[in-house]
Amino acid sequence: MARPGVKAALGSGAFYSDIQYPLGSNYINDGSKALKAHLTLEDLFLRDFQVQAPEVQWISATEIIYKSRDGNIMKLNIQANQTELLMKNTTFVTFKASKVAVSPDLNYVLLTYDIKKVYRYSFLASYLIYNLHTREVHELNPPEVSDSVLQFASWGVCGQQLIYVFENNIYYKPDVKSSSLRLTSSGQEGLVFNGIPDWLYEEEVLHSPVAHWWSLSGSNLAFLTINDTLVPNMLLQRFTGSLYPQGIRYPYPKFGQVNPTVKLHVVTLNDSSPTIELLPPSSLEKSAYYISMVRWVTEEHLTVRWLNRAQNTSILTHCSIHSGECERKHVITSDKWIDGQNEEPVFSKDGATFFITLPIKHGSQGSFRHLTMMSEQHTDGEISVRHLTSGNWEVTKMLAYDESLKAMVRTVDLFHRECLTCFLFKPQCSYFDAMLSPDLQTQVSERFHLDWDSVLSSSDNVIVARLDGRGSGFQGQKNLQEVHKRLGVVELQDQLTALEYLVKQPYIDSSRVGVFGKAYGGFLSSLLLLSHNSPFRCGVAMAPVSDWRLYGSAFTERYFGYEAKDEYKYQISSLLSNISISEKQTFLILHGTADASVHFQHTAELVKMLSMHNVNYTLQIFPDEGHDISSKHYILSSVISFFRKCFHENNAFTMETAEED
Amino acid sequence: MARPGVKAALGSGAFYSDIQYPLGSNYINDGSKALKAHLTLEDLFLRDFQVQAPEVQWISATEIIYKSRDGNIMKLNIQANQTELLMKNTTFVTFKASKVAVSPDLNYVLLTYDIKKVYRYSFLASYLIYNLHTREVHELNPPEVSDSVLQFASWGVCGQQLIYVFENNIYYKPDVKSSSLRLTSSGQEGLVFNGIPDWLYEEEVLHSPVAHWWSLSGSNLAFLTINDTLVPNMLLQRFTGSLYPQGIRYPYPKFGQVNPTVKLHVVTLNDSSPTIELLPPSSLEKSAYYISMVRWVTEEHLTVRWLNRAQNTSILTHCSIHSGECERKHVITSDKWIDGQNEEPVFSKDGATFFITLPIKHGSQGSFRHLTMMSEQHTDGEISVRHLTSGNWEVTKMLAYDESLKAMVRTVDLFHRECLTCFLFKPQCSYFDAMLSPDLQTQVSERFHLDWDSVLSSSDNVIVARLDGRGSGFQGQKNLQEVHKRLGVVELQDQLTALEYLVKQPYIDSSRVGVFGKAYGGFLSSLLLLSHNSPFRCGVAMAPVSDWRLYGSAFTERYFGYEAKDEYKYQISSLLSNISISEKQTFLILHGTADASVHFQHTAELVKMLSMHNVNYTLQIFPDEGHDISSKHYILSSVISFFRKCFHENNAFTMETAEED
Repeated sequence: MARPGVKAALGSGAFYSDIQYPLGSNYINDGSKALKAHLTLEDLFLRDFQVQAPEVQWISATEIIYKSRDGNIMKLNIQANQTELLMKNTTFVTFKASKVAVSPDLNYVLLTYDIKKVYRYSFLASYLIYNLHTREVHELNPPEVSDSVLQFASWGVCGQQLIYVFENNIYYKPDVKSSSLRLTSSGQEGLVFNGIPDWLYEEEVLHSPVAHWWSLSGSNLAFLTINDTLVPNMLLQRFTGSLYPQGIRYPYPKFGQVNPTVKLHVVTLNDSSPTIELLPPSSLEKSAYYISMVRWVTEEHLTVRWLNRAQNTSILTHCSIHSGECERKHVITSDKWIDGQNEEPVFSKDGATFFITLPIKHGSQGSFRHLTMMSEQHTDGEISVRHLTSGNWEVTKMLAYDESLKAMVRTVDLFHRECLTCFLFKPQCSYFDAMLSPDLQTQVSERFHLDWDSVLSSSDNVIVARLDGRGSGFQGQKNLQEVHKRLGVVELQDQLTALEYLVKQPYIDSSRVGVFGKAYGGFLSSLLLLSHNSPFRCGVAMAPVSDWRLYGSAFTERYFGYEAKDEYKYQISSLLSNISISEKQTFLILHGTADASVHFQHTAELVKMLSMHNVNYTLQIFPDEGHDISSKHYILSSVISFFRKCFHENNAFTMETAEED
Repeated sequence: MARPGVKAALGSGAFYSDIQYPLGSNYINDGSKALKAHLTLEDLFLRDFQVQAPEVQWISATEIIYKSRDGNIMKLNIQANQTELLMKNTTFVTFKASKVAVSPDLNYVLLTYDIKKVYRYSFLASYLIYNLHTREVHELNPPEVSDSVLQFASWGVCGQQLIYVFENNIYYKPDVKSSSLRLTSSGQEGLVFNGIPDWLYEEEVLHSPVAHWWSLSGSNLAFLTINDTLVPNMLLQRFTGSLYPQGIRYPYPKFGQVNPTVKLHVVTLNDSSPTIELLPPSSLEKSAYYISMVRWVTEEHLTVRWLNRAQNTSILTHCSIHSGECERKHVITSDKWIDGQNEEPVFSKDGATFFITLPIKHGSQGSFRHLTMMSEQHTDGEISVRHLTSGNWEVTKMLAYDESLKAMVRTVDLFHRECLTCFLFKPQCSYFDAMLSPDLQTQVSERFHLDWDSVLSSSDNVIVARLDGRGSGFQGQKNLQEVHKRLGVVELQDQLTALEYLVKQPYIDSSRVGVFGKAYGGFLSSLLLLSHNSPFRCGVAMAPVSDWRLYGSAFTERYFGYEAKDEYKYQISSLLSNISISEKQTFLILHGTADASVHFQHTAELVKMLSMHNVNYTLQIFPDEGHDISSKHYILSSVISFFRKCFHENNAFTMETAEED
């Protein structure tokens, strides 16, 4: 779960005036539509307005492979600006494939089809391997299985090596023609996961569908084994599609419940040496911990970050695949929680020097994350620490280290990159620098979801503002950590303060202000609407969290703790204990009943409480849909008409009163 | 499921005029409130407006026991008009009991507390036995069990005999002091039911929480054993109240699925003779059947009605508890289905003469149910049949037979009773004539649910009409059976025809007409709103059936059949294939998520379809609530404001258009 800012829709005073104040609105303007024309909901679904999300793969420092808008698979040499057709879109259509990946040796394409979303990043799918030269095709199946549905499949880093995950076990193919080797046997559906995360690791720890890591040469594979045997299961009922719809159960640890246990294994792929376990630092051995980052440094060493359950002690280690031992390199402790635990240190080639970001105090403003160089002394093995940047701003991502120039490439945010000195260094194997092409496809869907605001601000003379309160990123550690133990309190204040300023502007009608949020944002938007004397007239909560006790442990325990004595903090922050609404306010709740992240339970508890308080609300449910609801058109149209009606109705109400006077 | 008429709310032309046209509205006028004052929602919840539903028990021909408004348990001698206090209300409050029943010998009271509703009639509860003389109290528990929750408990018909059902087995206590005897051992939770019905038998076959019958002297007990082992289970998920809400599963046969099997047993209570089974007529032995009526005629004989699964062959039998054989007395077959299958024949003392109602043809108007006397000839055992009434009207209930006067007491409906000749005959044992006190408590809750219309018609100058179309009762067999194979077609026509007439009246605004319905009525109201060119502006569907395939077999198969080839008939009648709505229409759906009768599945399928068609709707869900939602105030308020807003908005809409012109 991300902690986004909140969107506020502000009805401007003159409702039918032609003046627009696109305050903070994400304007879409691709030149094909003049700014002055009104943007409609239907426009958003026109092809021209769809953001192109090319599937791009770097295959060398100068060549990329991508899927063109027509669906052809092309190779582009950036320096020569030459393109070559690898696979025609007809092939693509023939196999109804929706994703493609070219093998490292450029001889094969892996075609993904029948994709069924699981959680935020993961999906089930079937796969075909297509020979680019002979045009032969065969299915990717585990031994003795046909028409298999796999949990993961991908090329390795060299040649034609492939791995895939089936029934929670990892399989390896050294090349396309050779048979599959099963690398693990402990996998059990819903219980033990190898190489892929469970819900908690995917959504809240790794933020990825991948829980395995190739060594640079492709000869070793590190992977997590996540054991959910003792984790309580959540039931997701289905409602439609059959006479007797069944539910599914899956492990989902909440506040204070048993967490999954995790082990880090390494397997050497091309010999028969046994799989070894990399052991946690001794201080964590006997307690619950998370592994939040794994990265190969050399062919024999990895760097691994371990985090205690309270998430206030982080241990960065170097591990040897020979001894299985992990040596501490840097430890951070905090009285609050520690963020940025997925950050991969950037290493020099010999592994003796690495860079991380660390919170550094900046006067009274608190700490800010800055670039720090750590070097192991040859003489005594001690680590020397050198801060490379400073100030009241934050380093959010390190991209690469240029060995020859001894310079770091850093970025302030994903879309505003800055090379500190020069151009990139050469890659070692194949994909190392592919990290530098920002993954547009993920971050875009989020923006698309929120595009109701573009329509409102364009057609309805409504101003949409996005406010980042405390608890959101890149504004220093103090700002971030203010929400500790009181999620929903300080952010609320921040939103209200910002709003107070906004509604003083002459072009804003302070009696017609709305708010929108999803998940954590849905919690906040509900809180803003339902708080005593709320200045908001209209509120939309999509998949709102109503009680943090009901959400995933790794997220909530950061703020509220995991011991029984911490429960009162959860209660204070619960939406369910903060309900107050006036007759003029209107509230729209949207939720998919099969939401595996923020369960429908949250909305059920919320509307039960609303009914008890005789509070009117409007509810849209999306039967058997998950956290990302597929009926986008319907949702956008609901949100837009909700705001239109809410702003309009209140207008009508004023008119009526005036007539009676 | 009952098939009620449909309520239509009609907005009158002059919205703020003072004239009222209470067309068909169920006006509440108890004298304490003048007719001209407006009735508000809050009024409905005042004590004065609550209908008194006294718990009344006949204990002899001249004495009744009842709970007074103050909660005291009183004995009333009707002839002498004398009352006696049996138990003070303080006792009642001490034990938090909500129901009381006095033992046949008047020495004990059975107190029911901690009542938890199961289906329409059934409930789980705990019980105390209170000695009216010594004021001693003890719990009613099965042997070796304490604090038990029972599925049923009740006095027998003589002395202090008691039976109760625990874990689907029947227990018997000959008197309060003696220990319990277990009469059955086959009971298994959710699988085999003894003496109590499963969902299907309770809701759709017996219409009662009781599946056992005392012989008149109390020495024998007949009971059903209902076996659901092969019946598919439905999952009802819970959403609130815990971190990991669980679901429950229970047998619920739908169209074409395996039905429960049923056996009728008789046990002799005061000796150790084995329980015997009464065997079905040979023609039904090998096929699925229902037992729809059981009644003792003498101490050794019962009358039992058996119905084939298609419900178009009904066999009335007389069964001997000695031989276990059931002899056919009367068989009805039909090309449609046969209604009235719970009707108990009324017998002469010797059992040789009995009365039933039978469809009798009345010219071109089809058949009407009339009183028929059947007498067994002493000479040859043949049955002679004599029709006692005739005409284009129906006999709906036979109340008693006066042996001495040879006269029948009949009724046209429950509230309009008519004694054909005289006063009542003397009871044989104790409770026989208690049937004559109409059970006000059941039929009242239904009316209370629908009282939104009283508020609307009183305060908002809205006219509420209740229309009975084809398929509803008491208008002859032809009328009733028109819906065969086309539920939702002819009733729709009837409603539209009636409406066409109504909206021609000068005092009705034909552009502001609404419709309300629950369950089957919710199906019809949705159909009326969503049909092409619907004249309705506003529609409310509470717990609507959206697809009859998803409802209980015993109800739906009557109309559509149970074989695979019948599925197309279900599809034609499905709401899901009949969706069309205009922008001016508004639709409110209300549903409890734990509705065990009309599953939330119906609304899920409906809103999924509505979303797909981009149809706007308003939804109120009631988490973990059943078919009868407990938040009555909230529901009434929702329905009232929905109609107000819908009628008002359209008004506002008209105004706006006028301004632009």
